[in-house]
Amino acid sequence: MPELVDMNDIERAAGRLRGLVRHTPTWSCERLSEQTGARVFVKAENLQHAGSFKVRGTFNTLLSWRECGDLPSGVATFSAGNHAAAVAYATSRLGIPAVVCMPPGAVASKVAAVRRYGAELVFTEDLPGTCHQIMAERGYRLLHPFDDPLVIAGHGTAGTELLAKVPTPDLVLVPVGGGGLISGIATAIKARSPVTRVVGVEPAVSPAVSLALRHGGPVPLPGHAISIADGLCPPFTGDRPFAHIQAFVDEVVEISEEAILPAWWHLLDATKLLAEPSAAVGLAAMLSDAVSWPADATVVLVVSGGNTSPDGLRRLAQ
Amino acid sequence: MPELVDMNDIERAAGRLRGLVRHTPTWSCERLSEQTGARVFVKAENLQHAGSFKVRGTFNTLLSWRECGDLPSGVATFSAGNHAAAVAYATSRLGIPAVVCMPPGAVASKVAAVRRYGAELVFTEDLPGTCHQIMAERGYRLLHPFDDPLVIAGHGTAGTELLAKVPTPDLVLVPVGGGGLISGIATAIKARSPVTRVVGVEPAVSPAVSLALRHGGPVPLPGHAISIADGLCPPFTGDRPFAHIQAFVDEVVEISEEAILPAWWHLLDATKLLAEPSAAVGLAAMLSDAVSWPADATVVLVVSGGNTSPDGLRRLAQ
Repeated sequence: MPELVDMNDIERAAGRLRGLVRHTPTWSCERLSEQTGARVFVKAENLQHAGSFKVRGTFNTLLSWRECGDLPSGVATFSAGNHAAAVAYATSRLGIPAVVCMPPGAVASKVAAVRRYGAELVFTEDLPGTCHQIMAERGYRLLHPFDDPLVIAGHGTAGTELLAKVPTPDLVLVPVGGGGLISGIATAIKARSPVTRVVGVEPAVSPAVSLALRHGGPVPLPGHAISIADGLCPPFTGDRPFAHIQAFVDEVVEISEEAILPAWWHLLDATKLLAEPSAAVGLAAMLSDAVSWPADATVVLVVSGGNTSPDGLRRLAQ
Repeated sequence: MPELVDMNDIERAAGRLRGLVRHTPTWSCERLSEQTGARVFVKAENLQHAGSFKVRGTFNTLLSWRECGDLPSGVATFSAGNHAAAVAYATSRLGIPAVVCMPPGAVASKVAAVRRYGAELVFTEDLPGTCHQIMAERGYRLLHPFDDPLVIAGHGTAGTELLAKVPTPDLVLVPVGGGGLISGIATAIKARSPVTRVVGVEPAVSPAVSLALRHGGPVPLPGHAISIADGLCPPFTGDRPFAHIQAFVDEVVEISEEAILPAWWHLLDATKLLAEPSAAVGLAAMLSDAVSWPADATVVLVVSGGNTSPDGLRRLAQ
């Protein structure tokens, strides 16, 4: 079993990220509170640099390598979008060449973000395969989107930040794709506020983590799922996220596609924050009774990213 | 000429508003900065209680009355929406009855906000007439949407807050309807950072303040204008805003309807903040060259409100 990240790792990450990553706001939302009977807060990672939490793990990994005098000549990665944008952003800030492999159907705003930050972009159906081929050809190093302790520790800083505003929430709802974000957040929360329930939410059409929990370990999904929550459809979870989720996450619930779209509109209307649909699954779980909470509970929704362009909005609005 | 509000008034307002009104964030925006060659910040009043800056002036007025032992048995007002929502919100917090007169075509999300906070709602084509009739019948007092020194001083707290984050901006762009917001903000800015240019932006189809500046005083607009910036179409400005604008505002520019819609999308995409179209006119002025700025200038866009519902978005997206 892989070694688990701890609070020392997350605190070291927070030190490295200072000045490079935003302390995004943790806002209370009166309208969501009235509606749910809970005191609802949102941790607004859609306001993060490059549009999502992903810069946390990415900068932590690159800066750890640099501290150890171990920076590669370049990095490669694969991603549906937010990790790609974060790698493009962070490598451009640190002056490191980067190649990013994305699926041909990646969301336009995420492709645009990668281009804006200047990374080399390769479209491919075979994300890990193409990525490893490029790494072999060029001597580049993989910056994994979720299966890495430095990535998990970096993402954990979102957890310590939300606890600085809401010290002992009753429930924290976290979107789950590969599982890197919830691994980091749950590690921080169970160390600082063990009474808090940490619940992951993943699309029922792409339940990589739920499937792993049922099978006792990561297994590939039978095919590539398509969800409106495009950021939550990895082909599998990893051994490291799986170990952290087993250790620190209370439950992972699955949510239907039908529940995500109205929750996404609702989040926008109630909070005035443009999230991406993947970031609205926590609210979807609340509004569709996939999770429960005691009366007057304090609930934090982790709004993981905002990379939906006006084009995306227009399509969804039709 | 009416007496002008000063920094003492604004500081007293800030004291009254503590705990009732949000210190909304003033964020830098990398994407808007890259695009414009300025360092662009947004003052996000769309994240304010009741969805706009209007609670600042409203709470300041009600609390000043209460300090003087002069609370009326009820208040009445007229508004296209944001002031109505703010009066409904503030009176419900303070336990004061309120009647709000709105035009039949008011934006659905603003009507919903008034209903949510529990104020009595009257739809009327003759806003000031109906409002004064209700006041006479019930002995209620007018809480004016803009032509009041307490309202202007309350709105001025948005100015001191933005200066706390960006002490000497080169340019501050403020949406202009009745002129209350820019009056307060310009008063604060010229007191604390006289080198800063304060520029108002109003829809060319409803130029109440530009018309007043050309005529040397407030004059009624020839008819009721319809703009996508529904919050910036008052029938006239007031003597008090006019006096503050003459004293403290460097320029008021007019902006076409065609410039507002793309700026509104753009603001959403670049900042992840759902503004209402009225709140995007500052960015519209930048993107359509209605204002200019020196290279590397620091520019603050006052994003005045966010009361656009998903329905509004759907209409705009078509």
